[in-house]
Amino acid sequence: MLIPAMVASITTHSNSEGAAPTIAQAFSVVLAVLTENPNRPKYKLIIFKSGGSSSTIRILPVGESILVLMRFYTEYLTFKTAKHREYINITPQVETALHKSAIQEGMILVSAMHITAGVWVNDAEDGLIADIDEWLEKLAPFRKDYRHHRTGETNGDSHLKSLLVHHEVIVPVTAGKLDFGPWQQVYYAEFDGQRSKRVIIKVMGE
Amino acid sequence: MLIPAMVASITTHSNSEGAAPTIAQAFSVVLAVLTENPNRPKYKLIIFKSGGSSSTIRILPVGESILVLMRFYTEYLTFKTAKHREYINITPQVETALHKSAIQEGMILVSAMHITAGVWVNDAEDGLIADIDEWLEKLAPFRKDYRHHRTGETNGDSHLKSLLVHHEVIVPVTAGKLDFGPWQQVYYAEFDGQRSKRVIIKVMGE
Amino acid sequence: MLIPAMVASITTHSNSEGAAPTIAQAFSVVLAVLTENPNRPKYKLIIFKSGGSSSTIRILPVGESILVLMRFYTEYLTFKTAKHREYINITPQVETALHKSAIQEGMILVSAMHITAGVWVNDAEDGLIADIDEWLEKLAPFRKDYRHHRTGETNGDSHLKSLLVHHEVIVPVTAGKLDFGPWQQVYYAEFDGQRSKRVIIKVMGE
Repeated sequence: MLIPAMVASITTHSNSEGAAPTIAQAFSVVLAVLTENPNRPKYKLIIFKSGGSSSTIRILPVGESILVLMRFYTEYLTFKTAKHREYINITPQVETALHKSAIQEGMILVSAMHITAGVWVNDAEDGLIADIDEWLEKLAPFRKDYRHHRTGETNGDSHLKSLLVHHEVIVPVTAGKLDFGPWQQVYYAEFDGQRSKRVIIKVMGE
Repeated sequence: MLIPAMVASITTHSNSEGAAPTIAQAFSVVLAVLTENPNRPKYKLIIFKSGGSSSTIRILPVGESILVLMRFYTEYLTFKTAKHREYINITPQVETALHKSAIQEGMILVSAMHITAGVWVNDAEDGLIADIDEWLEKLAPFRKDYRHHRTGETNGDSHLKSLLVHHEVIVPVTAGKLDFGPWQQVYYAEFDGQRSKRVIIKVMGE
Repeated sequence: MLIPAMVASITTHSNSEGAAPTIAQAFSVVLAVLTENPNRPKYKLIIFKSGGSSSTIRILPVGESILVLMRFYTEYLTFKTAKHREYINITPQVETALHKSAIQEGMILVSAMHITAGVWVNDAEDGLIADIDEWLEKLAPFRKDYRHHRTGETNGDSHLKSLLVHHEVIVPVTAGKLDFGPWQQVYYAEFDGQRSKRVIIKVMGE
């Protein structure tokens, strides 16, 4: 039973003759390491791993970057835009939420909580944003005669624009950062603003 | 070492002088709590947490809502619509799947398993649904001369409509509920119905 | 305390009179199984489960398919298409990444890392692909006068096409396979090619 100063690891192969049960050995290793190293730096975690023919338990020092617990971190942004339609780069807020979550590996859901708003990933270039706005108005134009307006609403086109660009994205997280290409930015697209509307950011990972 | 009647928690900081290993302490806490409270209600779970400079173990009573095990729950819905195009509010089915999963925190993937159907999140208002149907037919119209029809199919427009609205959404789950804004509802959009088609609901979380 | 040859399981109900704490029993079971079965095949893992009124610990033999550790596997694809616009079926690459990850249950994010490309799930039929290309050019046409072109770019339409079809999909994974319907395939859509561009595949699950 090898017990290095900082890391203990034991693997038992199931096809070895008369192998003692891995879990019993694992507990033994834990106890041995703990009693033999009372003044060592903190041990980070214990992992039971098991493949087809082997099982491993490891005691890691604090420095190693493995976590066992899945974590979730949720934050809500609120926007009340000055204009009816407005496009806001919310990449900084998404990065802040990721930082607060301390999650290193996983995914972030960024999703509008309203049915007349969208969330997309694309370029932060003002000319393009104006092009997109014009294009959306062409494909999903304001019209007086939408059936939806019989409810008293006047925002039928805002619903269609939301469907067109979608209301949510999933952002990959690798090594504690948004795993984006060179120009990718997260935008909140407001299609019926001038009132408080929310976006949920949910970070999920470890 | 403080051991409340119902919850035990110990945190050791790695920079404290001569700190005994956290894991050894953790086991001690477990044993102490268990032997001193033989008739207490069940303890829910033990969590090892570890930040840069501290590690914590907690013994929680049954009531507290923390789970360590990531869970997945998968369900399939089948629809055979009466009409060629039809729009069905499937929010109740998504909520039922979430309830069955008992997941409190996570995400739900709701995804059409066919390439001539869609899933979106928007308003449950019949006038709007009719507007959307008309709008989709305008942007992705039925035409006889799609190249795809050389295969014998007649549903080229159904594929384009599916691409336009998308075939899946991710619904956030917080505190055991769909974390939706006031009007958000999940819709299944059938663009080529009158035969059995499936939707997958996969709940992922803890 | 029943201890089958290969699997031990104990459940204690919190409302039973004078029930000893579950966790203490759990440890007892572990030790009992281990000491009584020194030559047994490897035990796979120990799971603490807890419902409202019961807690269970199980010791599983190697064969059973339960894993406790959430895993993430990330891979990057690079494409340099011969043509300006091109559509590539990347289902085999997604399946390969899933196979490498060994994940049985979860989701795969497939996301373009560029803002002039898309990822969708639809049919692998060449006539349909040509229909889609023609349709996208109609809805989001090349034009010389996009404001975005004042930056020196000429790819305004590529951005709009990317917004229209979206840059990412989530693919469900069940029993180690892409949980797709009969005709679903993952496509990478290049709208501004002839240079190196990347797609991230992130598998998340257990």
